[in-house]
Amino acid sequence: MSDTEIGRYPIPELAELPDDIRTRMLDVQEKAGFIPNVFLVLAHRPAEFRAFFAYHDALMEREESTLTPAEKEMIIVATSAANGCQYCVVAHGALLRIFAKEPLLADQIAVNYLHAPLTERQKAMLAFALKLSRSPELVSEADYQTLYEQGYTDDDIWDIAGITAFFGLSNRMAIVTAMQANREFYTMAREPRVKS
Amino acid sequence: MSDTEIGRYPIPELAELPDDIRTRMLDVQEKAGFIPNVFLVLAHRPAEFRAFFAYHDALMEREESTLTPAEKEMIIVATSAANGCQYCVVAHGALLRIFAKEPLLADQIAVNYLHAPLTERQKAMLAFALKLSRSPELVSEADYQTLYEQGYTDDDIWDIAGITAFFGLSNRMAIVTAMQANREFYTMAREPRVKS
Amino acid sequence: MSDTEIGRYPIPELAELPDDIRTRMLDVQEKAGFIPNVFLVLAHRPAEFRAFFAYHDALMEREESTLTPAEKEMIIVATSAANGCQYCVVAHGALLRIFAKEPLLADQIAVNYLHAPLTERQKAMLAFALKLSRSPELVSEADYQTLYEQGYTDDDIWDIAGITAFFGLSNRMAIVTAMQANREFYTMAREPRVKS
Amino acid sequence: MSDTEIGRYPIPELAELPDDIRTRMLDVQEKAGFIPNVFLVLAHRPAEFRAFFAYHDALMEREESTLTPAEKEMIIVATSAANGCQYCVVAHGALLRIFAKEPLLADQIAVNYLHAPLTERQKAMLAFALKLSRSPELVSEADYQTLYEQGYTDDDIWDIAGITAFFGLSNRMAIVTAMQANREFYTMAREPRVKS
Amino acid sequence: MSDTEIGRYPIPELAELPDDIRTRMLDVQEKAGFIPNVFLVLAHRPAEFRAFFAYHDALMEREESTLTPAEKEMIIVATSAANGCQYCVVAHGALLRIFAKEPLLADQIAVNYLHAPLTERQKAMLAFALKLSRSPELVSEADYQTLYEQGYTDDDIWDIAGITAFFGLSNRMAIVTAMQANREFYTMAREPRVKS
Amino acid sequence: MSDTEIGRYPIPELAELPDDIRTRMLDVQEKAGFIPNVFLVLAHRPAEFRAFFAYHDALMEREESTLTPAEKEMIIVATSAANGCQYCVVAHGALLRIFAKEPLLADQIAVNYLHAPLTERQKAMLAFALKLSRSPELVSEADYQTLYEQGYTDDDIWDIAGITAFFGLSNRMAIVTAMQANREFYTMAREPRVKS
Repeated sequence: MSDTEIGRYPIPELAELPDDIRTRMLDVQEKAGFIPNVFLVLAHRPAEFRAFFAYHDALMEREESTLTPAEKEMIIVATSAANGCQYCVVAHGALLRIFAKEPLLADQIAVNYLHAPLTERQKAMLAFALKLSRSPELVSEADYQTLYEQGYTDDDIWDIAGITAFFGLSNRMAIVTAMQANREFYTMAREPRVKS
Repeated sequence: MSDTEIGRYPIPELAELPDDIRTRMLDVQEKAGFIPNVFLVLAHRPAEFRAFFAYHDALMEREESTLTPAEKEMIIVATSAANGCQYCVVAHGALLRIFAKEPLLADQIAVNYLHAPLTERQKAMLAFALKLSRSPELVSEADYQTLYEQGYTDDDIWDIAGITAFFGLSNRMAIVTAMQANREFYTMAREPRVKS
Repeated sequence: MSDTEIGRYPIPELAELPDDIRTRMLDVQEKAGFIPNVFLVLAHRPAEFRAFFAYHDALMEREESTLTPAEKEMIIVATSAANGCQYCVVAHGALLRIFAKEPLLADQIAVNYLHAPLTERQKAMLAFALKLSRSPELVSEADYQTLYEQGYTDDDIWDIAGITAFFGLSNRMAIVTAMQANREFYTMAREPRVKS
Repeated sequence: MSDTEIGRYPIPELAELPDDIRTRMLDVQEKAGFIPNVFLVLAHRPAEFRAFFAYHDALMEREESTLTPAEKEMIIVATSAANGCQYCVVAHGALLRIFAKEPLLADQIAVNYLHAPLTERQKAMLAFALKLSRSPELVSEADYQTLYEQGYTDDDIWDIAGITAFFGLSNRMAIVTAMQANREFYTMAREPRVKS
Repeated sequence: MSDTEIGRYPIPELAELPDDIRTRMLDVQEKAGFIPNVFLVLAHRPAEFRAFFAYHDALMEREESTLTPAEKEMIIVATSAANGCQYCVVAHGALLRIFAKEPLLADQIAVNYLHAPLTERQKAMLAFALKLSRSPELVSEADYQTLYEQGYTDDDIWDIAGITAFFGLSNRMAIVTAMQANREFYTMAREPRVKS
Repeated sequence: MSDTEIGRYPIPELAELPDDIRTRMLDVQEKAGFIPNVFLVLAHRPAEFRAFFAYHDALMEREESTLTPAEKEMIIVATSAANGCQYCVVAHGALLRIFAKEPLLADQIAVNYLHAPLTERQKAMLAFALKLSRSPELVSEADYQTLYEQGYTDDDIWDIAGITAFFGLSNRMAIVTAMQANREFYTMAREPRVKS
């Protein structure tokens, strides 16, 4: 694969796509300035595309969630790094920089969350997410107790698990499609915010 | 949790559920004779429920797929066993017995597919699915070559990967919700088919 | 190997076997209705056969043991599943269903004992058995303390260790001989007991 | 445990032991000059003692075996080191030095057989033994092909597997009983043989 | 540790340092514009500091080496990511961007070198480096054959091994000292080079 | 490699070596009665040789260290055994026998420190060293707390980490150079000290 390609599977032309899928792509393009490759690669199969983004939105835009947008991205970056998924680490690393307004945090979590400047509560969340992601067979009641002690509720646990599980799916599809992260993601939000 | 409970989260009353979700449950109940617990447990969050089953159907009912129904269930049983997911091994073990018309195969694959009576091609499919499921970070171009040599196409590989990835998600949600397999699944299709 | 074969090694004719071995087989056949394949496969080497079953009986029929028959089978099913041994999971799964009078338990423990309806004491027993089976090099004094806290004595620990160790041997012989579980084991005791 | 103790379980007095067990101990004492602790520790349970040594003899003294005594000890040393079993590495290291007439080999194999002066055929034997010992669930038909290519027969494979499996049992019993290797074993046969 | 601290150990004042160490720091500061924290943290122990940098220079500035500066940094980034060392991934990621003149490569290798745009020869180098770094006990003659087939010589192998081994040391010291990567490294050389 | 060779790389003639390196070798030869092969093998690259031994001396001869010489050797033997390094286990096993004046301890720690007659404090030191050596990415603040509770200071932790890290480097160089332990090391100090 040349480094200008964006995946192992054919990328459909925008004009050929079903209206709803094309519209979603144009919306994200207008907002972000470019179309993230996950949209282009997954459009190869429209039915799976629709279910993928419906699931994504259900989890990531759930109004009642008490996890902050930055915390959700922390889960994604940490588990995607463990799974070796370039697209997800780079793209969600950018989102984490944006939401956390902290330009170093994404790289720190991608390498080793244990050495990142996080709260104990956030570290407990990531420890659980990584255990569920990498060794689901070892998760047991004691893990929930640890999360309860940090103040997480059962609905928080569902959120953490859902995001971990969904991006585990996403990681595997990105790996098998050889999905490349757009260049824009690598440099996005790397400068410290200016205090106004 | 008592052994009559079906999960760690509240199970909504059917009457309270949105129409589309209740209808789906009643349809499956009519067909199977009972409501599989995955429907009851996931109904706790309707938006995720809808995306989950839309994804499920997009993968499992994709018309162009060359994988047989039994082969799809083999992937699910093998990867779910590795992930330690009781619900998925038991429920999809039942489906594998039904589709394969071979009452021993599900248990054999759940314990160790290397010792199950499968073709080399099927073993290559399961080897890939297990590698992607358990060590996605190690998947590389050489793995696709192995599958090509067995006659799998890139769209077959997407199917295998999609099913592996989706049921990886499903395994993690079943584990965290402590989803119990319905008793019916344990005994379903355990008798050898009568040759007519 | 065709699926009607029962192993990779020659199976001796009953008539050719030494009297003591043939008698043991006929006894078990009378009791069970069939000869479990472990007898047929191991009879290839009479001296090892005799030692194997002498060891088996010494451990499993030890009168002073406080472990229940069902608990012994739990250890066998859990460790054999981890070791990927089809024969032992299927055959001892059947025995576990018989002894525990609980038709779901064997499959639940085979997939993941952490999600099976067991007491904390039984889970501690299985945690120890699995550690000893899979990572004997990590067993240390702290593990015995955990068992003592659950009320296990040093002789119980010897029993747990002995069963774990012996069936670890059995697993490896069953794997290398490609020993197939008899069809009868798959369906045995799957119906719930009728309360009389 | 003080370093003069030889295990976590009570050691019976010789006078109290059943005749056959005491006789076996006195025989080995006459031959070796001391009673190896494995006899003393396992005598705590006579029935298991008898089966253990019957199995040991059936495997290690099988007349038809084409494995040399040194090769059998290589298997024991390599797998016992991987399992972290002090008694077996030290005691069988001594036997390996005696049988191989090569004073460095036992330590070399205990640390890493890949860097020991062995033939390719012996390395293939140890690679198989270690895979079966440490990851039995991964053993498959391809492993036997590798051994066939090195000239091993199915009966050789049974020997390798049997020794691996039996000493896997032995390792676990030695670990749980905290069996200490006799001081004599540490220095036995460490001097190079004098060429006569 | 607050995120303005640079490690768990006291950082000596420049004025207190031995002349040779202070001079080395001032030299690097003049060249880079800042003092990388590895100098400040390791200066806590001058004798180890001197040996560390002497070793570093002997390996990284060895004139006869056929590895390019970018290839040396690839080894460091890949192995440091596997070891979870924030300082080394971030600092040497910056150097890799500088030497490779390819702003995406460091992040791609840090996440998963199998999906980075590298030659087969470079991937073989990194596969060996990662095996030596993470599982040195498994390295065997076959690994050198694989490298020879890619055209690597024994002196190249020493270089690869030396860099892997030295930065394995460096990773462990950075982890235990909680060494923080300077902010400057995170953004260095992230813009694509302008073709002149 | 024949078993009289001492490594995969050319061994320079003493006469060809730089004065400082030759002098160091002759000094050790005078003291030990032979030249340990690590000197001969690493002399292939003088600059790395000098840095290697400078680092070695800085760590092992640091006057302020509260670790005893035997404790330093325990760390080396335990971590080198885990890394599968024959040279380091055999050579430093000899040094451990000498310093500890306990002829069994080196073999016991090489096989499994959990079953060696060590204090709880020493076991905590080795547990930390092994974690840092084998899974540096998992080391976290909790590990230091465990060491503090055993009375270790931050400077002790640096010592433990430095020795672990340096001999991790040494292990990898010994493995890749196929460095053979001198025969003398195998038998050194195996007899119990005579109490005077």
